[in-house]
Amino acid sequence: MSLDKKISVAVIKRLPRYYRYLSDLLKLGIKRISSKELSIRMGITASQIRQDLNCFGGFGQQGYGYNVEFLYNEIGNILGVNDNFNFIIIGAGNMGRALANYSNFDKRGFILKGIFDISPNLVGQTINNIEVLPLSSLDSFSKNNKIDIAMLCVPYEQTPIVADKVARLGVKGLWNFSPMDLKIPYDVIIENVHLSDSLMVLGYKLTEKLKNL
Amino acid sequence: MSLDKKISVAVIKRLPRYYRYLSDLLKLGIKRISSKELSIRMGITASQIRQDLNCFGGFGQQGYGYNVEFLYNEIGNILGVNDNFNFIIIGAGNMGRALANYSNFDKRGFILKGIFDISPNLVGQTINNIEVLPLSSLDSFSKNNKIDIAMLCVPYEQTPIVADKVARLGVKGLWNFSPMDLKIPYDVIIENVHLSDSLMVLGYKLTEKLKNL
Repeated sequence: MSLDKKISVAVIKRLPRYYRYLSDLLKLGIKRISSKELSIRMGITASQIRQDLNCFGGFGQQGYGYNVEFLYNEIGNILGVNDNFNFIIIGAGNMGRALANYSNFDKRGFILKGIFDISPNLVGQTINNIEVLPLSSLDSFSKNNKIDIAMLCVPYEQTPIVADKVARLGVKGLWNFSPMDLKIPYDVIIENVHLSDSLMVLGYKLTEKLKNL
Repeated sequence: MSLDKKISVAVIKRLPRYYRYLSDLLKLGIKRISSKELSIRMGITASQIRQDLNCFGGFGQQGYGYNVEFLYNEIGNILGVNDNFNFIIIGAGNMGRALANYSNFDKRGFILKGIFDISPNLVGQTINNIEVLPLSSLDSFSKNNKIDIAMLCVPYEQTPIVADKVARLGVKGLWNFSPMDLKIPYDVIIENVHLSDSLMVLGYKLTEKLKNL
């Protein structure tokens, strides 16, 4: 499928969720689904679903619904799950370890190639069959391995320095777990993960609920 | 401030981000800021900012901009950062440990009260000055401690069972790190964290960028 028009970031951010639900439907052997049924499962409106999926050409047919496998594959293509990305993790603390052991990444085409840290206590340890290397070896490692993405799980103060180093080595995407909106003067794509933002939304909803009791 | 109208979830989800930026501005001693300046810092349009902040009464003044401290406090109030929430972590693996050591939660009013696991290897260990307790002791623990939120960092298959148990004990909010949209037949608020969704968005942006090179 060729995409003639640009899809908005808001729609793109919802696609992984569609992809997960479609994956579950496929596993259940469900071959087609209406926007209404999908709406009930996903807890979003049918009109939102139709609007989102129309953005890239409308895969639904009136009275038939969506072909689950076709839609799953198309969304997968758009998200690039068939393109493999090599990634490294910098920082082998708890978050880095949690990510290294997260089994869903490779299913989505993200291949863990290396883990780096500066701590002598962590270097040499093995996490998910990969030996933690010293950060000082990243230069030579990056010459011998194509790295697309670096996950940054380092302390707050270190994050811009490490991001800078990694970007200079040619890494194209950064997934940042430090609680900051990282900005560096390089042409890299940065996704900042702010865990406490999601917790604050939960806190807000709890407060609202208690008010209405 | 009393909120007469309901704020949309989309706006609520953006508030933690405003809150972080305003916190940074306060630290820098900046007393007022225009929507345009804030727009440049945050990388979103000034009209989006005005629209979002108008949702709850419009704190800006024409030609003056926003009073940073006032706006920070108001958004904090809306998000309930001055209400403290007690939370527990279930699952003392890597993700549970990472969350237990995450220093930003207490700054936002989320107080860690207990960590639970079923593994004899983990029970009795101390994480961030808190001893990991056996999950079997959660019943009695919840009688002696008010728990608002449980963070679920348990394996996929265990998640619905643990969620069920926790909800029956009266916990009102669940923050779920298993890669599933958790649903349980109890009146609890659930926020599901899907880490790989954010990574897939990064992958999409990388693919688009490579296409346009």
